[in-house]
Amino acid sequence: MSKLSLYPVTLDGSSVDEKRREIKNYFNNTNTLYEKVFEVLKDDSVFYEKSEITRHPMIFYFGHTATFFINKLINMKIIDKRINPDFESIFAVGVDEMDWDDLNGANYIWPKVSEVRAYREKVKELVEELIERLPLTLPIREDSPMWIILMGIEHERIHIETSLVLHRQMPLNRVKSISEFNVCKNSATAPKNEMLNIAKASICLGKDINHNLYGWDNEYGVYKEELEDFKVSKYLVSNSEYMAFVNNNGYKNLDYWDEEGQKFLKITNATHPSFWVMVDGVYKYRTLTSLIDMPEDWPVDVNALEAEAFCRYKSKKDATTYQLPSESEYRAIYNEALLEDLPAFHESRANLNFYHYASSCPVNEFSFNGIYDVVGNVWQWSRSAIHGFEGFKVHEAYDDFSTPTFDEKHSLIVGSSWASSGNLIMKYSRYAFRKHFYQNAGFRYVISNAKQEKKEDIYESDELVSQYCEFQYGETHFGVENFAIECAKIASKFAKNKTKALDLGCATGRATYELAKSFQSVEGIDFSVRFVQVGAKLKSDGYIAFHTKEEGELLVQKRVTLEDLEYENLKERVSFWQGDACNLKANFHSYDLILATNLIDRLYNPKLFLESVVDRLNSDGVLIITSPYTWQESSTKKELWLGGYKDENGKEVKTIESLKTVFKGKFELIHLQDLAFVIKETRRKYQHTISEVSVWRKI
Amino acid sequence: MSKLSLYPVTLDGSSVDEKRREIKNYFNNTNTLYEKVFEVLKDDSVFYEKSEITRHPMIFYFGHTATFFINKLINMKIIDKRINPDFESIFAVGVDEMDWDDLNGANYIWPKVSEVRAYREKVKELVEELIERLPLTLPIREDSPMWIILMGIEHERIHIETSLVLHRQMPLNRVKSISEFNVCKNSATAPKNEMLNIAKASICLGKDINHNLYGWDNEYGVYKEELEDFKVSKYLVSNSEYMAFVNNNGYKNLDYWDEEGQKFLKITNATHPSFWVMVDGVYKYRTLTSLIDMPEDWPVDVNALEAEAFCRYKSKKDATTYQLPSESEYRAIYNEALLEDLPAFHESRANLNFYHYASSCPVNEFSFNGIYDVVGNVWQWSRSAIHGFEGFKVHEAYDDFSTPTFDEKHSLIVGSSWASSGNLIMKYSRYAFRKHFYQNAGFRYVISNAKQEKKEDIYESDELVSQYCEFQYGETHFGVENFAIECAKIASKFAKNKTKALDLGCATGRATYELAKSFQSVEGIDFSVRFVQVGAKLKSDGYIAFHTKEEGELLVQKRVTLEDLEYENLKERVSFWQGDACNLKANFHSYDLILATNLIDRLYNPKLFLESVVDRLNSDGVLIITSPYTWQESSTKKELWLGGYKDENGKEVKTIESLKTVFKGKFELIHLQDLAFVIKETRRKYQHTISEVSVWRKI
Repeated sequence: MSKLSLYPVTLDGSSVDEKRREIKNYFNNTNTLYEKVFEVLKDDSVFYEKSEITRHPMIFYFGHTATFFINKLINMKIIDKRINPDFESIFAVGVDEMDWDDLNGANYIWPKVSEVRAYREKVKELVEELIERLPLTLPIREDSPMWIILMGIEHERIHIETSLVLHRQMPLNRVKSISEFNVCKNSATAPKNEMLNIAKASICLGKDINHNLYGWDNEYGVYKEELEDFKVSKYLVSNSEYMAFVNNNGYKNLDYWDEEGQKFLKITNATHPSFWVMVDGVYKYRTLTSLIDMPEDWPVDVNALEAEAFCRYKSKKDATTYQLPSESEYRAIYNEALLEDLPAFHESRANLNFYHYASSCPVNEFSFNGIYDVVGNVWQWSRSAIHGFEGFKVHEAYDDFSTPTFDEKHSLIVGSSWASSGNLIMKYSRYAFRKHFYQNAGFRYVISNAKQEKKEDIYESDELVSQYCEFQYGETHFGVENFAIECAKIASKFAKNKTKALDLGCATGRATYELAKSFQSVEGIDFSVRFVQVGAKLKSDGYIAFHTKEEGELLVQKRVTLEDLEYENLKERVSFWQGDACNLKANFHSYDLILATNLIDRLYNPKLFLESVVDRLNSDGVLIITSPYTWQESSTKKELWLGGYKDENGKEVKTIESLKTVFKGKFELIHLQDLAFVIKETRRKYQHTISEVSVWRKI
Repeated sequence: MSKLSLYPVTLDGSSVDEKRREIKNYFNNTNTLYEKVFEVLKDDSVFYEKSEITRHPMIFYFGHTATFFINKLINMKIIDKRINPDFESIFAVGVDEMDWDDLNGANYIWPKVSEVRAYREKVKELVEELIERLPLTLPIREDSPMWIILMGIEHERIHIETSLVLHRQMPLNRVKSISEFNVCKNSATAPKNEMLNIAKASICLGKDINHNLYGWDNEYGVYKEELEDFKVSKYLVSNSEYMAFVNNNGYKNLDYWDEEGQKFLKITNATHPSFWVMVDGVYKYRTLTSLIDMPEDWPVDVNALEAEAFCRYKSKKDATTYQLPSESEYRAIYNEALLEDLPAFHESRANLNFYHYASSCPVNEFSFNGIYDVVGNVWQWSRSAIHGFEGFKVHEAYDDFSTPTFDEKHSLIVGSSWASSGNLIMKYSRYAFRKHFYQNAGFRYVISNAKQEKKEDIYESDELVSQYCEFQYGETHFGVENFAIECAKIASKFAKNKTKALDLGCATGRATYELAKSFQSVEGIDFSVRFVQVGAKLKSDGYIAFHTKEEGELLVQKRVTLEDLEYENLKERVSFWQGDACNLKANFHSYDLILATNLIDRLYNPKLFLESVVDRLNSDGVLIITSPYTWQESSTKKELWLGGYKDENGKEVKTIESLKTVFKGKFELIHLQDLAFVIKETRRKYQHTISEVSVWRKI
């Protein structure tokens, strides 16, 4: 075993105590390795710099993996005390460059590195204690509290890899080499690439729910495909092979680039791969912390757009069609290579898990039945956009891990790299990035008849989100008016000033837009990115598309545009953010109105929200709460319900009375009414609910 | 280990193969032992006799435990082919003497013993094969298919015990002794009973959901009680001790008997315990297959009413208050006895699991820390009526195992007997019988200050059943009329003849009563006894009581009587039965009307129902189907849906079209309309659904 990185723990076993020890070792190893990655930064000042303008400074990532544990544990009601609410909001979101990630530096006062280090230590102690004492039966399953610990660990493993990419993108004078991360010394002339035959095969993708290794939600389910014979390149494309493309005017000839690729060229002015550096007319090669002579036989690091451009260039040159392999074709290659999954696969056989190098190595160093680097060295871009397999179900603890990437814009990378470990090096893992992103990724090519399907409108695949789209943007039933519109009307009637409003628990965002008819600026916040992305998509793409269920599995497709809604002039007034109503980031303040629709009975700590909401409002600001008070233990622990129970004296406690008590001296109740809403489940089945609307003016 | 009966298998373990072997051995041992119990019957003709007028003949029980496997496996969609639909309906229900159990012999043509034996063999082969091949991960949990196998095994273990009681009640010339069931030879003068102190204690009942032995649904959950000091009899009450009561006019003096006890005396004319037989002026004692001299030091076998009468007699004599122990007091006794649960407890330490005898034995033979027969020998009646513990949840595969007994009429028996094995001898098992039932049961008494609480109205504790009570008997909402009444009106309008109607899927029975306004006789059938018992209770007790949810856990109690509903003159026209619409017993036929409300999309095989329903109707008979067509895989495997999917050509299949196709040549569609219904979940949350009502006349 490599001394740097342990293999992940299996979910089954015969001894619970032994399993706790294994998890603890694996957690500590992950934590140590992650902190090691930050030793590459020259000094503390570098933590406040960005290597990519579209990303947070390094300090964010340093704190992020620790706060992830706490936020998930709170969310799943495994713990009920935060360690540092402030850290746990500012380090919470902004990993991917999504519309709803707040990356505006002005909104953050970053803490000191030493403070974050101390915080990480506290989280470590808590997690170690939880590993000791959480209920545990084997095998560990998705609904086990220990699954959340494994999720935190594997999440940190991902950031070990992605942080190394960010650090590799830092200026050389901002990083330093450390002894544990040694660069490969082997390099020679690149071997000539050639095409190998892969026989036709029935491919079945997807991991069994009872598999004995941790998996992210996108890995489970089933997908079957029949493949014809195809050919694959023996080696990854080397720097040398790619150089021919660069030298042949590759980055100038727009025929090689599709629309997205041309946009990439325009924005970046790229003329060669990102980790090539021209010094005195010669390309040098950037490793994690150094610049070395071009290793011609190492794989080229490119993004998907560059890889596709190379394929178009080579297709033209050879008068045949090369393309990136699909996800299924990659599996056929994997099978042909006679590879085994962890833990049977020994890490010494490939350039991964930090076993050999902290860099790439020659493309002809690791062979698997004659095909090289099928796993390890660098990730390989596929031509497949990521989707959920049949039977896909989001994991409730991390419902935005996958679904925001099911947008036809995220391409799968396969095979893992020298910086991959944990789930990243498992057979069934599935990671996808936008095509212009850099990872430790290169590519190989195939000649195959299979075409890449390109979808037109992207329909919501998420049933619950579709149901809410129909609820907010669809038809009305039983004569009950659209709830979002009615709420916005009430807000408009009672709010005095109309500068800035907050739609908290905005779901798919309809009320956010409706509020923008009377408020100059409206922010929509929801806990779930699955919902937030709908309002954001309407703004950015000008439409949303979803299904409504008619009977059984029969669906009707619906498409709603900004024009249909007459929102063209409102879209600049709205913005959408992911956020936790019980631990809202400090920059959400100074509202004239806060609308909290059907929110309070879904919060893990509603009182925390009620006590803090007053500070977010301007004087004379108005708070509107709507709720059917459907308290349930799956959302809120019973001891934190605001109503719907009997107190110690046997007296019935109703929610509206608790609101009055909590708001005493802070708010005055100025209006109370019922307001019905109807949510369609099928053409014949509806939820018909009567919210109570209470309107409160800040005293 | 005893050679006759194996200990139950644990749910955990490290080897799946080894676990399959253990389960197979345990299944085969159970099956063999059960068939052994029937060897006690003298010849095949005895299989068609009853030992109790209120019960089925023996052949029913012989077939019942085998059909149980098939019915549960079908119901849980683990298998989809029946072995013998006829056997699987006639051997399905009628174990307990419930209102809804059909015990009318005229409704059955019992098969030959050899046919049932051959059937049992087929079931055995199938179960053995399933044990080999069903998916299995350890530990086995409630939602594992293997749980259903264990359920079938433990169900047969119960019938081993109860069949032995029935056989013991057979005339002596109808039974024969067999070598494996040996009667205890020890007997002497009974020891004088005395009272032992049990110190006050905090008792916590209820089994953890992760316990490593199989449990019935009623065992799980939590119940806590603080007990004061109390005293308990050292021995079970012996035949000798009980004799004093009999000789002191015990069965004549009505002061010793409560209302239910007096009713028992009146019906049975009992003057002594059932297994005492007066021969030439002397009491002899009936064992399983023989009559022996009265073993004075063996425990007396009595029902709960007799045990209570004895306590009243002894209380008067000693001028103190004796009563039966409560469930919690029994646990305190169990703890004081320093007992361990299986498998640590060795069966040689008590008279159970057929280890020593196939009969009782002296009350001073097995001591546990000075208290005798805390487990084993005979069951001991408690004074506690059985209820679900906090957190009780019915197991979906056997939803009428427990809830019909939560009626204040079923008393817990504790401690197990010589004929107990499997779950029956586990610490956490809970079995309850009506007080006049005979089991291998006696009693011990306590002196304690704790009182037995007697409840007045029995409110439905089952949330779903309560919801349906409110739906059928409660208020209307959103201006939508009561669905059951509207359906009955439509039925009355379209049916030509009005002699006999069937309300199939009757739920809590409202439409059954409403149909009785126009039909002379109406049968209500539901798959779930949880529902059937509501209509039956309204008929027998004249009222039903249930809760409706207002907010969170706050409830409103409701009570509805026959008078309120003006059903006093209708109740003789209705009857309620448990039944499976996909495998209805042959005696349900000759209807002028069949009403199937919101049924077809909840059946495991709707087509089977549609194809057979025509034969149940008289010529010109009318079938009414109402359904919102809410197809879901949890009720019906997708390949058996009648609609709501796309066929192999991509064409949408709607349910109404499938109905027309299936009914072609059998029925004519004479009316089609929508009919809404509203089900209240809380004061603010409702299901609002639009059924399609199709009315079909038999051609």
